[in-house]
Amino acid sequence: MKLDVDLDTFTHSGDKDFRLADHPQSLGRKLYENKADYRTRIAEFQREIDALQSMMYAHDRYAMLLIFQAMDAAGKDGTIKHVMAGVNPHGVKVYSFKKPSAREIDHGFLWRTNVAMPERGRIAIFNRSYYEEVLVTRVHPGIITGGQRLPAEQTKTMSRLWKQRYAAIRNLEQYLHDNGTQVLKFFLNVSKDEQRARFLSRIDEPEKNWKFSEADVAERQHWKSYMKAYQHCIDKTSSSDAPWYVVPADDKKNMRLIVSKIVLSRMKQLDLHYPEVSDERRAQLQDYRQQLDEG
Amino acid sequence: MKLDVDLDTFTHSGDKDFRLADHPQSLGRKLYENKADYRTRIAEFQREIDALQSMMYAHDRYAMLLIFQAMDAAGKDGTIKHVMAGVNPHGVKVYSFKKPSAREIDHGFLWRTNVAMPERGRIAIFNRSYYEEVLVTRVHPGIITGGQRLPAEQTKTMSRLWKQRYAAIRNLEQYLHDNGTQVLKFFLNVSKDEQRARFLSRIDEPEKNWKFSEADVAERQHWKSYMKAYQHCIDKTSSSDAPWYVVPADDKKNMRLIVSKIVLSRMKQLDLHYPEVSDERRAQLQDYRQQLDEG
Repeated sequence: MKLDVDLDTFTHSGDKDFRLADHPQSLGRKLYENKADYRTRIAEFQREIDALQSMMYAHDRYAMLLIFQAMDAAGKDGTIKHVMAGVNPHGVKVYSFKKPSAREIDHGFLWRTNVAMPERGRIAIFNRSYYEEVLVTRVHPGIITGGQRLPAEQTKTMSRLWKQRYAAIRNLEQYLHDNGTQVLKFFLNVSKDEQRARFLSRIDEPEKNWKFSEADVAERQHWKSYMKAYQHCIDKTSSSDAPWYVVPADDKKNMRLIVSKIVLSRMKQLDLHYPEVSDERRAQLQDYRQQLDEG
Repeated sequence: MKLDVDLDTFTHSGDKDFRLADHPQSLGRKLYENKADYRTRIAEFQREIDALQSMMYAHDRYAMLLIFQAMDAAGKDGTIKHVMAGVNPHGVKVYSFKKPSAREIDHGFLWRTNVAMPERGRIAIFNRSYYEEVLVTRVHPGIITGGQRLPAEQTKTMSRLWKQRYAAIRNLEQYLHDNGTQVLKFFLNVSKDEQRARFLSRIDEPEKNWKFSEADVAERQHWKSYMKAYQHCIDKTSSSDAPWYVVPADDKKNMRLIVSKIVLSRMKQLDLHYPEVSDERRAQLQDYRQQLDEG
């Protein structure tokens, strides 16, 4: 599927400083002509991703990890649904990481996500992730000092703790890459105005009421701190092997098409193929054919 | 418990090059007067370790990871048994990592051990570990190239792969330390002659026959390669926060006493204490005492 957009504009590989201000929340144009055109395009992306995931499964060497981070109402759930809807569910697992359990807090901050890492041939999708440990916790450090039960000497200097966590994340993602897992990190970049509009629709439209949470409105007060935390986090954890993709999120359809194209282009870069069959094996298969032909 | 031996002689913190030849397999003297004295000493160590583990559990900030690596018949199982026998089983979990399962191989080489990491307040013991992935695999690289299903570009240059794995291990252990898990790595250093004697006793003594494995005898052929792999591995993965302890293993009782002393001394270095009780809480407790006194 062709999509008239340059993916490089969304990609940050850590080769230069990252500034969130360089990344608009809106493209200023539509990547689809109308709703029908959007549907055709997204369906075609789904088919292509599904076909490559099947091959990835047969090839059995690579895995993929898609991480979605964003402010509330940016459209994480919808994007995951629409990008992955066409893929064989056997090949995809979605994990939502919410407030950690007591058992999870009793381990290091990477433990619960480490457990969920994808097997070869599979795609894992993290709806939020270990990145919350340098985002929401950075805006509200009391989550760490008050609840995470780290040894006292580790939380004495918070700037040191953030550095340690960024390094631990970079190292983890390098290890994942070196062992066959492709790591894609998406920041769905919604504007504060668009978030307000979406919250309002959660109040005004009865079938969306269940999505409304007063806590989300309260978090809006910390918008600036969140943007600072995202900028810092993306700056410190981008790498050529595990880039961040900062995707304009004010137009949901644009966003889903862009995310689809990024996922597909990363899959296409892999040297995927069905396992090779030796001449000997091919001869064996013909023997079996003969046996089967005989009844 | 006093033990007349300097732990520094066994400790390698990565501050200088590591040479296995500097580490004898025998102390040349006994750290105990006789069997009864040994029993008294080991029992005292067990009591002290148990008491500190109880405090570590109440304090709920630190965990401990003890890794045991060694050639066959060096005494890993016996050491784990005798050092940890006195500790509340609720506070200790032992994991034996043997040949990986298909599901384990479908993840990165750190996955199965990551899942097993200890919770705060607990001690995890790894009988073999991710270190096998730079030891037995280094002696027999076919285990990786033939069976681990890494992407082809990752196994093209094996020297690069070992470097990546050493780095991944160093990074993992630094992360564990920074998040409260103390990492202790023991190489039980047995001599080739002593190994032969122990194998022979597995043949000669009927109640030990079940321990004998022809595969172990075959691995003896690779002794030199294993020693090279251990030297390299210890050199590349020692750090001040996660040192290696190279313990002479030809005298099992000496070895157990030394390992006990190391574990205990590391526990004593932690700032462990029972959770502090505020004046307010203390007053509350007195109120409850009164209620209980009243029936």
